[in-house]
Amino acid sequence: MSERIGFIGLGIMGRPMVNNLLRAGYPITVYGRHPELLEDMHLKGAIIETSAARLAAQSDIVFTMLPDTDDVESVLFGKEGLHEGLVAGSIVVDMSSISPVSTRLMAKRLKRLDIDMLDAPVSGGDVGAKTGTLSIMVGGDRQIFNQVLPIFQYLGEHIVYMGDHGAGQVTKLCNNLLVAITMAGVGEAFILAGRAGVDLERVREALLGGFAASRVLELHGKRILNGDFEPGFKIELHAKDMKNALEVAREMGLALPATLMCSGYLNAMIGRGEGGQDISAMIHILETLNSHSISGSKKN
Amino acid sequence: MSERIGFIGLGIMGRPMVNNLLRAGYPITVYGRHPELLEDMHLKGAIIETSAARLAAQSDIVFTMLPDTDDVESVLFGKEGLHEGLVAGSIVVDMSSISPVSTRLMAKRLKRLDIDMLDAPVSGGDVGAKTGTLSIMVGGDRQIFNQVLPIFQYLGEHIVYMGDHGAGQVTKLCNNLLVAITMAGVGEAFILAGRAGVDLERVREALLGGFAASRVLELHGKRILNGDFEPGFKIELHAKDMKNALEVAREMGLALPATLMCSGYLNAMIGRGEGGQDISAMIHILETLNSHSISGSKKN
Repeated sequence: MSERIGFIGLGIMGRPMVNNLLRAGYPITVYGRHPELLEDMHLKGAIIETSAARLAAQSDIVFTMLPDTDDVESVLFGKEGLHEGLVAGSIVVDMSSISPVSTRLMAKRLKRLDIDMLDAPVSGGDVGAKTGTLSIMVGGDRQIFNQVLPIFQYLGEHIVYMGDHGAGQVTKLCNNLLVAITMAGVGEAFILAGRAGVDLERVREALLGGFAASRVLELHGKRILNGDFEPGFKIELHAKDMKNALEVAREMGLALPATLMCSGYLNAMIGRGEGGQDISAMIHILETLNSHSISGSKKN
Repeated sequence: MSERIGFIGLGIMGRPMVNNLLRAGYPITVYGRHPELLEDMHLKGAIIETSAARLAAQSDIVFTMLPDTDDVESVLFGKEGLHEGLVAGSIVVDMSSISPVSTRLMAKRLKRLDIDMLDAPVSGGDVGAKTGTLSIMVGGDRQIFNQVLPIFQYLGEHIVYMGDHGAGQVTKLCNNLLVAITMAGVGEAFILAGRAGVDLERVREALLGGFAASRVLELHGKRILNGDFEPGFKIELHAKDMKNALEVAREMGLALPATLMCSGYLNAMIGRGEGGQDISAMIHILETLNSHSISGSKKN
């Protein structure tokens, strides 16, 4: 017998995830504030509900895929929120990328109602969501993870149990701060080589052959050379993860100097109106700083 | 007919390189200040000379593999230096990692004597030198590169022509600054996850599956978990490359904030007496800064 699934968050990520679950045959209830998105989901077979509380009342497992911590908190504990409808023994799986600190508090608060929570942020972007090939990093009780695993397998293909509540979110933050810092390194290498007049395509190839090799150099390095800054994963979402990483660092009393620096770069990119671009557009910050243009050099 | 090769710089890198060239059948003359090293080279078949100038007089191509810019300058242009013995049409191949700015000046100065120079720094460490599998990044005249290529092939296996004089050195600097910055990123990710209580081996594996993947995360990440800081490539040499990168940046009027920060970390490591360790020991700086120990956690 299939679990009854509730799904809240019908954005770029959420919609294709719901589609994959519908295709897998799960009965799905959705709730949201955008009638046009609900209509589309209804046509595809989802049941529409008029509040998070009512959705919760008819679901065994509720998935959330929302922009940031506040959104998850308000859907969970706000007026007509999930907590008003969830019954003891049900499960909340938050696949948003939010603060690990808040995640732990929410999990604790739900546990008092005998409701289990998993944090299960993803990487792989809208393409991964559509093709069901997301990476999913999961925190929470291992037994609950095992229970939800068959459903995760319709959404992703690299599904890792990371540890206790918040461990999934922490891993996601580690992933994204490392991507941003590696991007800063690739950017500085390109700026130095570019100003020195060395062909950047050759630099990229030479560096991919050694210890400096990374997926960021390979993929985002290529994007810089092609002048192609279409996301991928938008700066404004990446900036949110950097903010959350620094929030955790503050709560835990940690200095993360490179994360701090890159967070500043991402903020500046949003200030420049580039929040909708890919992380590879970070090169523009270094180009502006150094009055030296290299991106899109392959096109010229 | 084999070119007569001169080789100056019989350190950890130079000695195995000379061995490989001797094995390939080239007649080789060496010069150096350490009699015990010369004796060993003599036993292996090299001719010993008593000055760089005298070595130059009987070589078609002279290779140098020295610690830093000053050493190369003094061997080239100092008293009884190469310039006193080199004849028009001969070639100097500097395989040291030194300043690209100085490299260009030296190449220009030699050109006035009708002597060609290549900068050909390597990566791959003493293991690569022994097994003849170095990566070699070459700058200078393309025809001269083609002429020396058959010899390079006895020393390395990933041999890339990068462009004009200095382009090899610039590429090497880009490689090493990117390795250092990626290392800082891996370090911050590990510190954050470690303090949050997430298992670092799992974090490493999860991150290797996504956009944050890099050889630094793979190899140096493993070293951190194993508490294994044997070089590899010594911090004190890496610090020299960071210094040279910042020198070029200054000469060209560039800000490279992450390079600057990591250069500071490497200086601090030398100050702590860790100059002989591997770059992965950078984690100690972040551990000290944050009063949180994670390295060698797999051993415990």
